[in-house]
Amino acid sequence: MEEFNILNLLIILAGAWVGGAAAKRLGYPAILGELVIGIILGPAVLGMLETSEMISILAEVGIILLMVYIGMEINFRDLGKASWPGLLAAIGGFVVPFGLGYYTIILFDGTQMAALFVAIAVGVTSLATKSRILVDLKLLNTRIAYVLMAGALISDTLALIIFAGLMSFVDVGNVDALGLTWVAGKAILFFILTAVGGIYLLPLLGKTLSRAKIKDRTLHFTLILIIVFGFAELAELAGLHSILGAFMAGLFIRDGVFNRQISKEINDIFHDVSIGFLAPIFFVSAGFNVTLDIFQTDLWMLIAVTLVAMIGKIGGTALFYLPSGYGWREGLAVGTGMNGRGAVEIIIAGIGLEMGIISAEIFSILVFMAIFTTLTVPVFLTWTTKWLKNRGELIHQESRKGFLILGANPLGIHLAKHLAEDNDVTLVDSNRDMVELAKKEGLNAIFGNILKEETMEQAHAIDKGTFIALTANSEINLLAAQLANDSFYIPKKIVLMDPKESGAGVDLLDRIDASSMFAAKTKLDPWTYKLSSNNASEQEILVEEEMSTRQWIKEQKKQQKDFLPILIVNAEGHKRPFHFHDTISPGEKIIYLR
Amino acid sequence: MEEFNILNLLIILAGAWVGGAAAKRLGYPAILGELVIGIILGPAVLGMLETSEMISILAEVGIILLMVYIGMEINFRDLGKASWPGLLAAIGGFVVPFGLGYYTIILFDGTQMAALFVAIAVGVTSLATKSRILVDLKLLNTRIAYVLMAGALISDTLALIIFAGLMSFVDVGNVDALGLTWVAGKAILFFILTAVGGIYLLPLLGKTLSRAKIKDRTLHFTLILIIVFGFAELAELAGLHSILGAFMAGLFIRDGVFNRQISKEINDIFHDVSIGFLAPIFFVSAGFNVTLDIFQTDLWMLIAVTLVAMIGKIGGTALFYLPSGYGWREGLAVGTGMNGRGAVEIIIAGIGLEMGIISAEIFSILVFMAIFTTLTVPVFLTWTTKWLKNRGELIHQESRKGFLILGANPLGIHLAKHLAEDNDVTLVDSNRDMVELAKKEGLNAIFGNILKEETMEQAHAIDKGTFIALTANSEINLLAAQLANDSFYIPKKIVLMDPKESGAGVDLLDRIDASSMFAAKTKLDPWTYKLSSNNASEQEILVEEEMSTRQWIKEQKKQQKDFLPILIVNAEGHKRPFHFHDTISPGEKIIYLR
Repeated sequence: MEEFNILNLLIILAGAWVGGAAAKRLGYPAILGELVIGIILGPAVLGMLETSEMISILAEVGIILLMVYIGMEINFRDLGKASWPGLLAAIGGFVVPFGLGYYTIILFDGTQMAALFVAIAVGVTSLATKSRILVDLKLLNTRIAYVLMAGALISDTLALIIFAGLMSFVDVGNVDALGLTWVAGKAILFFILTAVGGIYLLPLLGKTLSRAKIKDRTLHFTLILIIVFGFAELAELAGLHSILGAFMAGLFIRDGVFNRQISKEINDIFHDVSIGFLAPIFFVSAGFNVTLDIFQTDLWMLIAVTLVAMIGKIGGTALFYLPSGYGWREGLAVGTGMNGRGAVEIIIAGIGLEMGIISAEIFSILVFMAIFTTLTVPVFLTWTTKWLKNRGELIHQESRKGFLILGANPLGIHLAKHLAEDNDVTLVDSNRDMVELAKKEGLNAIFGNILKEETMEQAHAIDKGTFIALTANSEINLLAAQLANDSFYIPKKIVLMDPKESGAGVDLLDRIDASSMFAAKTKLDPWTYKLSSNNASEQEILVEEEMSTRQWIKEQKKQQKDFLPILIVNAEGHKRPFHFHDTISPGEKIIYLR
Repeated sequence: MEEFNILNLLIILAGAWVGGAAAKRLGYPAILGELVIGIILGPAVLGMLETSEMISILAEVGIILLMVYIGMEINFRDLGKASWPGLLAAIGGFVVPFGLGYYTIILFDGTQMAALFVAIAVGVTSLATKSRILVDLKLLNTRIAYVLMAGALISDTLALIIFAGLMSFVDVGNVDALGLTWVAGKAILFFILTAVGGIYLLPLLGKTLSRAKIKDRTLHFTLILIIVFGFAELAELAGLHSILGAFMAGLFIRDGVFNRQISKEINDIFHDVSIGFLAPIFFVSAGFNVTLDIFQTDLWMLIAVTLVAMIGKIGGTALFYLPSGYGWREGLAVGTGMNGRGAVEIIIAGIGLEMGIISAEIFSILVFMAIFTTLTVPVFLTWTTKWLKNRGELIHQESRKGFLILGANPLGIHLAKHLAEDNDVTLVDSNRDMVELAKKEGLNAIFGNILKEETMEQAHAIDKGTFIALTANSEINLLAAQLANDSFYIPKKIVLMDPKESGAGVDLLDRIDASSMFAAKTKLDPWTYKLSSNNASEQEILVEEEMSTRQWIKEQKKQQKDFLPILIVNAEGHKRPFHFHDTISPGEKIIYLR
């Protein structure tokens, strides 16, 4: 086939990888590098590549799979929990730039349709904010991060719904009331049908498969693809765009529909095939359609759209955030964090270009707006969060809160009592007496075998943020952490490892990204004995310079032996368990037993 | 985009799934159902669908990914071990139909090029033989199965090399000696470059990644795709076809190049995306190019090609198999097993059609030949293997032989002594005394912690067919079986599970497809004690009707208690461990302790 040009595909993939890796190294999302590489390789600069049939088809499949993945990542429960401030930020950060964006294009004599497209594009928030930037700025467990994620999810969902509305009228033009009702009716019918399909039929399919004991991952993958393309076709039939169908399908393919293990593996496949293969083809080729002429011909419009996008997003978020009562400074920080535009914006702009609704110039402006706004995120967010931090207004909060502790032995109970001061803590043990003891201490404790999914479910493992395995048996600890990771996606796993030579070693913690409790191999029995015979005393020590937990132990060993660091207390009095993958900041205290 | 028709894609995927599932239910490979569905949906019958740009592009990506997967599945080591009979079967089963196929087309006034294409197509053997059919006919552990797999691998590799040779001359036509040397030189250069790249550069890349502690699966996937398309482009530059480059890339991406865990996950992605998504698009759309007119216009050629393919393959295999000394009956059985044509044949035929080398009629004949020959496999193979079985000539053999037993306790040693009679057995224990004891008994024993990859490697886990975990600690047994499965791909895992309430349960065996030793939860200590104090006697009992191992235990419990079935001995005296996922045939004996 002439049209199948492997060299182009190779250059695009290699370019996307180089661009993406460079962007990531600089702390930006990969999509930024992919767009820039596309502009460089494409007609705008080098002219090495241009859009071809092959590229646009693979790119189209890529965005469909990407929308499925984005949908899969959105959790209804998270949206529900997003609560007041997240919703405020999302609405403010969408509505204000939407309005400003619309009037800017009208002002520059754009069509109403083009103005609406640009309005959506400036209103969107990049989901990429939830990744690297938050980690780099150590913001993951702050209230800002939490609001940011919820805000981005809600604003993307909002943008897609408005986009759906827009799409359903796009072919229609000026029609009578009956025609408009028909158009709106079809769109509503689509949402009803997909909701019914997603809420009732999909779980039914999942149950049928699991009753038939079908655990073939490939079969599940094929069936899910059929569902995805089915939803996409339904969206097209309703006069909407296929990406909406894919997004809806992704929304409904989630926890509990299929076998947990298989769901996770399929989520991984969608992630890798879209983000690691086909979606970069879309983002690189989006760069092919960019023209640099706009810097001469439409510079004012570019500046206006970019400014409106930034001021509208940041200002709108801060303004609407006021009723939350968390202050305008936090609102500004959230606004700067939501200022980036990403995948969804480029996808919407691409559709607008392809349908002839926006011109190549406006498309180029939107791509550069995405690049500029994304560039600002780490810079502005660093400023605003430093400011908050210096004022002591950077509030910590975790999206999945609470601890699940395996082992209601004296040490487990001791730890649980500390953590329960400002956290939801559940203990699990297979020894009934231990469980009773813990309950007497006023703790939440469950009797059961943690290696059974039922017990995990009973302990609400799916809502917990940290799993601590604290039995004397390293292998049970490790297997339990595997289950917590693979089936309940608990983000943090802290596992007690015994120093014995044989049996499980710390190298086995890597696969599930777990950390070892107490930051060193530890024998449990001596400490539980000391605790139960009241032979252990609790001490506190202030740390004056930043160091890793293992460094702290090394330092401490020079002065004393026979001590067990159990908790780190930060300046606000918030306690967290002492484990290997952690760093102690100046001003934090260590609580240890001796 | 007009050219992106989601409905077509949806119909193709759903059709492929229905066809594939139906074929599988009937005991045939999925590809058969996909081809038939393609013929039915395509212009030949219903005319619902026809080839489009979109479909052919996705199909092309599908076969590239499929060739990578096929290459990944071929293990140099297996090819090396294929030994004499496998090589004989492969050569005979390729050369004879190749020659007959060539002359058949010449006889029907075909061009020389078309004749060579058909010759390769009839020479190919379906890799699908290695899957369901062997399981259904319970042939997995027979010598025939072993020869079949090796034969299919060698014959496909052979076919692809000859195809490469053919492709390099395809554009050239009649040229002078210098031109021909140039063409051949380019092809040879391709093989040298890919071999150097694959043998030296890839492992270097793998080492660099692992030294940098990069364990990001998506990044590995992207890099591997870049390598794949790089090799494919290299093949095109050398005047060969891209699928050869993809196949070579797959060959070199294997054990030891990248992190074992990641390699396995990426292998899974290539499997799912090709076999579960894109390759079916190719096979269904292959059916679109089929014309049923050949049953009127070219019936004789169809009959001739099909007969030549079948007689050539079966007869050629049986004939060349004679020097193996295993008899012409086994040769016939191997020939009937290799008679199916599959993915590689359809891919080669598709390329021939696309390049205009073969006509639509010859293409249709090749598709029907693939369908007919595949249909014969289970039927003929059932006949021939029944025949061998009735004559007592069905020889058992395992592709990965040998046992790795964790736990050199008295029971482990007892079992090892039995199994060592006709197997390579290695014991591993973390207790030095136990290991010494086992060595004194003349057994192969290694001291070390089985949960370390080094120990597994020292015990040659990668060559072992069965892993038996026999320590008193169920969790160590389970973790060891996970490692044996995930990193060393040991096909059979048999794990002793303790009956205690807490800790690991049998449900955790599912993920790694392991079976429980002794077919019931068992306490180890009483039996090791009885054995070491000479309080256990060994008994044998003949089984008269077919039953599962757990049924046998149920029956036996009615008559006695306190017994432990340890081995099943088949009619030829071959011993295998007694475990849950096994069935006892009439005439087999159970060895048990009491």
